[in-house]
Amino acid sequence: MKIISGGVCAAKGFTASGIHCGIRKNRTKKDLALILSEQPASAAAVYTTNLVKGAPLTVTKEHISNGYAQAVICNSGNANTCNANGIEVAEKMSEALASALKIKADDVVVASTGVIGQPLNLAPIVDGIPALVAGLSKDGCDAAAEGIMTTDTVKKEIAVEFSVGGKTCRLGGIAKGSGMIHPNMATMLVFMTTDAAISPKMLQKALSTDIANTFNMVSVDGDTSTNDMVTVLANGMAGNEEITCEGEDFTAFMQALNTVTVHLCRMIAGDGEGATKLLECHVSGADTVATAKTVAKSVICSSLLKAAMFGADANWGRVLCAIGYSGADVNVGRVDVSFRSAKGEIAVCKNGAGVEFSEEKAKEILLEREIEIVISIGDGAYSATAWGCDLTYDYVKINGDYRT
Amino acid sequence: MKIISGGVCAAKGFTASGIHCGIRKNRTKKDLALILSEQPASAAAVYTTNLVKGAPLTVTKEHISNGYAQAVICNSGNANTCNANGIEVAEKMSEALASALKIKADDVVVASTGVIGQPLNLAPIVDGIPALVAGLSKDGCDAAAEGIMTTDTVKKEIAVEFSVGGKTCRLGGIAKGSGMIHPNMATMLVFMTTDAAISPKMLQKALSTDIANTFNMVSVDGDTSTNDMVTVLANGMAGNEEITCEGEDFTAFMQALNTVTVHLCRMIAGDGEGATKLLECHVSGADTVATAKTVAKSVICSSLLKAAMFGADANWGRVLCAIGYSGADVNVGRVDVSFRSAKGEIAVCKNGAGVEFSEEKAKEILLEREIEIVISIGDGAYSATAWGCDLTYDYVKINGDYRT
Repeated sequence: MKIISGGVCAAKGFTASGIHCGIRKNRTKKDLALILSEQPASAAAVYTTNLVKGAPLTVTKEHISNGYAQAVICNSGNANTCNANGIEVAEKMSEALASALKIKADDVVVASTGVIGQPLNLAPIVDGIPALVAGLSKDGCDAAAEGIMTTDTVKKEIAVEFSVGGKTCRLGGIAKGSGMIHPNMATMLVFMTTDAAISPKMLQKALSTDIANTFNMVSVDGDTSTNDMVTVLANGMAGNEEITCEGEDFTAFMQALNTVTVHLCRMIAGDGEGATKLLECHVSGADTVATAKTVAKSVICSSLLKAAMFGADANWGRVLCAIGYSGADVNVGRVDVSFRSAKGEIAVCKNGAGVEFSEEKAKEILLEREIEIVISIGDGAYSATAWGCDLTYDYVKINGDYRT
Repeated sequence: MKIISGGVCAAKGFTASGIHCGIRKNRTKKDLALILSEQPASAAAVYTTNLVKGAPLTVTKEHISNGYAQAVICNSGNANTCNANGIEVAEKMSEALASALKIKADDVVVASTGVIGQPLNLAPIVDGIPALVAGLSKDGCDAAAEGIMTTDTVKKEIAVEFSVGGKTCRLGGIAKGSGMIHPNMATMLVFMTTDAAISPKMLQKALSTDIANTFNMVSVDGDTSTNDMVTVLANGMAGNEEITCEGEDFTAFMQALNTVTVHLCRMIAGDGEGATKLLECHVSGADTVATAKTVAKSVICSSLLKAAMFGADANWGRVLCAIGYSGADVNVGRVDVSFRSAKGEIAVCKNGAGVEFSEEKAKEILLEREIEIVISIGDGAYSATAWGCDLTYDYVKINGDYRT
């Protein structure tokens, strides 16, 4: 398997497009994205666990209930959530697109992201669809990736090439996600495409298994959004024998999927609202995976630790504190902690108590852009990784007046 | 019952004192506090639920296991937590104080607050005790309240006068608490005193019952500290017949206690690290108290809502979002939300969907210092209140480099 350039257009048979249609006031920001497969594709998705669910999620869930889809449309600037006519608007988006593409409306995945509780005006979307469709091309991935961004500062895309049953397959994805991001959900907006042939059932199994260790281990701010959704379309155009059960081929597919999702997780966390640093918390030595995950998530979610990382302050007491209130069954007298980055690694806590360390060296390590918090909690065989970011002035600034 | 001036010295037989002994570098900041009862008092306490517990908590728990205590000593600037010799240091603090006061060491409540994981130097405390004891007076409450402050910007104290069995009783308290503050714990440092006569068992019952609706409903930053503790000493000098069971007298005591604890909760939340606003979230119409509490706490803990409140932005979608991911069983189609302050009240959401409202009026309401978020979730009989604060640049600034 190797990483290749491109995102959702890397796999055979997929094209994409992105335009500014007028939902967002700023004309330089794209606000409508489209991904199309030449032929209907196996489709799988996972959705937010928030009880308040965006109308597009309800519509998408119904559309892909037969296991197939062919196109994805997504607007930014308005979440189409908590609106009386939300379902109707999401259905009409699907119908307008399906009509322009001459595909079935229930083969459309529809998504929205942006402010909650303001009616979504259908007119600019319907008016924009001809230009959106006209723009479809193999080079359209960047434009689509831009079209789904809100407070994101960088486009998030990746693709990999791998082999299934002797056939070369590709899998790529784009993501948006900057704020309202927190574990225990089907996180953010992530659209992935692959030309591997895989049944809807196995595609859903692959996705559901993977997100438990990837997107559900990311937190920017502890807020689980109402509109999060991760989808994969698999159109089978690589020509491999369809994956219909577990085995070598499924494992190869899972590895490719995991490479793409971990990359997108790191990009989403590192581009968290206002973030200056990507934080990666590795927990090892746990008696169960659940314990390792609980500890890693608790540490990555601590506002106090996040602020300390912003200040490059090796305040490891906050790591211990977050382990202690995580709810996990941990012997705190066995906990070791170190900080690691491109500048090296420094141990700051052994067996639950502080050890002497060089503050200068710690500062040098913590001034890097990517920081690993390495925690051992005992002799157990299980480990987990969680991704997050620092808490900064800009997070407050971005969210203090998001709507205006 | 009426509110009177004073804090922990309002009740008969209590004196207090506070000095700078040298744990904190800044000589203008007091760092050691003492509260003394003329005679041994019934004692009750609740402690943090964090698995990482400060050594002073372990020592205090043992000291008051017989139900009685006579003095409280508390330092700020160092939490005496995650240190190999923490228990020994906390015991020696108690012994040095007991010796100076000629009381029993196991009648001392000992507490520490500040940075975690740096050995606490006993010398300045032992050297400071003579001056601390010499300073004891009825006017010493302010000095004690200052001695327990860390990043707090205001002293937190209150006292009330009430009647039990025809006798006038007083109950007062001081608190510290600015960061590392979150529900589901025995929160922060709060020391209360009363001259009411009440058995240790009933005192503990009163305290444990009360904190479930008061201190455990406060959140500043979602971080449950390792050193939180709430204690009450009741020395019986008001001369009322000792409260030993439920009934009218116990109810009167509970009311007085609740007045003091709610006041301190509001002071702690409003003085949260970096806070410019006190947020009070009222949830009504719930089918159970647990549901009402879960919803209120989820809303008050949302980083996104906290940032919106800082910006006086009526972004009610974030309230709905926080209700949706709270884990409570809520019919989101029944949710009403309004914002209220001294400038009036404005409805922003009815039955889970937005209603038209004046942005100017909303801004005027949200620019106030104290904001109420009023939520109705149905026809149920239960309600709850939670207290928090906004998320500001200064929270990040304070916590980006706390140790230096």
